[in-house]
Amino acid sequence: MSVSASAPGRTGTPAPGGPEDRAARVALTWLAEPGNRAVWALVEQAGAPATLDRLLSGDIPDARLRSAVSARAAAGDARRMAEIAMRRADRLGARLVVPADEEWPRRVADLATLELDTGGRINNDTRPPLCFWVRGAWPLGETLERSVAIIGARAATDYGIHVTGELASAISQDGWTVLSGGAFGIDAAAHRGALTAGGRTVAVLACGIDRPYPVGHTALFDRIADSGLLISEWPVGAEPLRHRFLIRNRVIAAATAGTVVVEAAARSGAAQTMSRVLALNRPAMVVPGPVTSAMSVGCHEILRNNPYARVVTNAAEVLEEIGRIGEYFAEIPRGPQRRHDHLDEEAALVLEALPRSGTSTPEQLAAEARLDLRTVLRRLSLLEIAGLVVRTADGVSLAPARGPSRAATG
Amino acid sequence: MSVSASAPGRTGTPAPGGPEDRAARVALTWLAEPGNRAVWALVEQAGAPATLDRLLSGDIPDARLRSAVSARAAAGDARRMAEIAMRRADRLGARLVVPADEEWPRRVADLATLELDTGGRINNDTRPPLCFWVRGAWPLGETLERSVAIIGARAATDYGIHVTGELASAISQDGWTVLSGGAFGIDAAAHRGALTAGGRTVAVLACGIDRPYPVGHTALFDRIADSGLLISEWPVGAEPLRHRFLIRNRVIAAATAGTVVVEAAARSGAAQTMSRVLALNRPAMVVPGPVTSAMSVGCHEILRNNPYARVVTNAAEVLEEIGRIGEYFAEIPRGPQRRHDHLDEEAALVLEALPRSGTSTPEQLAAEARLDLRTVLRRLSLLEIAGLVVRTADGVSLAPARGPSRAATG
Repeated sequence: MSVSASAPGRTGTPAPGGPEDRAARVALTWLAEPGNRAVWALVEQAGAPATLDRLLSGDIPDARLRSAVSARAAAGDARRMAEIAMRRADRLGARLVVPADEEWPRRVADLATLELDTGGRINNDTRPPLCFWVRGAWPLGETLERSVAIIGARAATDYGIHVTGELASAISQDGWTVLSGGAFGIDAAAHRGALTAGGRTVAVLACGIDRPYPVGHTALFDRIADSGLLISEWPVGAEPLRHRFLIRNRVIAAATAGTVVVEAAARSGAAQTMSRVLALNRPAMVVPGPVTSAMSVGCHEILRNNPYARVVTNAAEVLEEIGRIGEYFAEIPRGPQRRHDHLDEEAALVLEALPRSGTSTPEQLAAEARLDLRTVLRRLSLLEIAGLVVRTADGVSLAPARGPSRAATG
Repeated sequence: MSVSASAPGRTGTPAPGGPEDRAARVALTWLAEPGNRAVWALVEQAGAPATLDRLLSGDIPDARLRSAVSARAAAGDARRMAEIAMRRADRLGARLVVPADEEWPRRVADLATLELDTGGRINNDTRPPLCFWVRGAWPLGETLERSVAIIGARAATDYGIHVTGELASAISQDGWTVLSGGAFGIDAAAHRGALTAGGRTVAVLACGIDRPYPVGHTALFDRIADSGLLISEWPVGAEPLRHRFLIRNRVIAAATAGTVVVEAAARSGAAQTMSRVLALNRPAMVVPGPVTSAMSVGCHEILRNNPYARVVTNAAEVLEEIGRIGEYFAEIPRGPQRRHDHLDEEAALVLEALPRSGTSTPEQLAAEARLDLRTVLRRLSLLEIAGLVVRTADGVSLAPARGPSRAATG
């Protein structure tokens, strides 16, 4: 299909980041849930305004999207809804951030190539956000660049609340942003731990930022907006529908350098978030707990089911995991030589163990570098993210001299 | 060197399991600590009696062993000590079990090929036992065939004691022998849990079975000997010297189908035992605990440092791990066809994913079989133990048609 065919009456695409682009992105998130694969593909191809035209014209190849859009379109005029949302946001002191903006967080781009073999509509609609609504003074991108997510159960125990508070305080004192979902229990303890330490914290909502949910956290959300950021993909007025928390979770996984789950019940949302963290090759950290505690069952499930999920027991171990990945991101703009200088010793050993040409297997590298297999696998993920190695069907090899690849390879 | 040269005046080697062989093995464990590599190599080559002759003649290539033996020899006549030990054991109702005996436990043979890159004399003297002293009615081999070790800290918490008791009871009710080291804390809770459930339990001592240590467990040891087994590699009268617990630990790792550590302090003996369990490709299972508990620090260390160590939270998960390996051992005598029939589904998927000829990598197999990498690695270990696959420098391949290899491949 061609762009012109998909954008009747439109000549050329308006400037990304311009008023039309911004309004169209808001309208699109009102017409279809964020993360929708079909919408994202169209926006990538033709831009937001042309995509909005096309969706409203009903010329939609994807049947599921077509019915969803027609249902919403019947409920109101998408463009008008966008205008209202933007005016209401203005009055709230909230701003709209789009990919063309300086402060757009670049990590969420990794969602573009995220593939999960989990079934279900929500589970597969994991494409990047079209826009963010933001309350708070800090630039969004800079604030998320050094951020770690701390998530967990609403029905947390004193143990979980205590451990979360300690972790959040220490991590934010180290200059990292503590990000969470604003829910009761672990989420709230994470936000409060960072606030108490005078650090930055970000709450990612699954509804309009004008209607904080849970309502009991209204005061907490105001404190967060005052000293950190309150963000959401949904236009003001959007309700905290159950499925939206699952959609929101992909942003928690993708916007941060790593995610820590402190307490989780069996088969909880935390496991779903962690599957995204792992698929993105980000550090997936789990705080263990008593096997006699129902609130640690989910944590132990994640550890038993995911070879890359890592046990963490204190802030130093969390900082060790996310610190490395942080360095790698920071190093990416530099030349390979400089980047080598900044490799941690184990990563350097793995890199040295790789053949100048041809491929090797993680097990061969472990033997060669005299490291345990898990260490090799974690370093390989980081080296891959740093663009120093590439993974192929045959194994792992040194990356070609050209700039680093950032493709997610979960 | 030739056997005749190493056995002055001896013509031929006496029958293994005969009186001379038995007495020589006792004398050898009195002259040198069990597990000694040099002694074991000589016994393998020339038999126990010839090795004893040689050691007593002072013709000992290994300098460390030579000085150790001469020091002991100065303290008494090895053959006389052996006679005394055997008479005392008789009076105690204890029996000597040697490799030639029907009831010799075959799993300990895997220590013959165990290689560890950890430094230190004790850490490297991990060769198989020369003999076992046994108190109790059950046949040693049959009792250890379906056994699982449950070990941990002496200074255990109520949490650790509770979890250990629950695990030991459930595991022994499933027909498995619960083996431990007879120490205070977790060890005692494991033995008691099995006794309470009316199951079989085995205590592996690091001293003569005539002088139970700790003395406070004298009554417990008597109960264990009445309904299970009390065993030791050391002749009666041997003292519970500190280093002997580390030597003893290799037997706990090798004699069982798998080992569970419930609570452990930082850098504890449990970690040393687990490193042997992992090197033997046996299931290394760890019960997590509160990160706020000093008695769980060692458990979390083991999980963080060993990719193959597995989190277990209840008896069902332990039985899942050791049950599989148990099946595989049981299947070994059968033909490959029959063994295939008994593979668990995941192992069967891994086996199917292997190319008929040539090698594959665990990562390729994971992709091919649509299993996570850890599952593939664990199944490969079991398939390897079952002799169905072999690991080479290039990767993993199907084993040749000939009978299964039982070589440890840690």
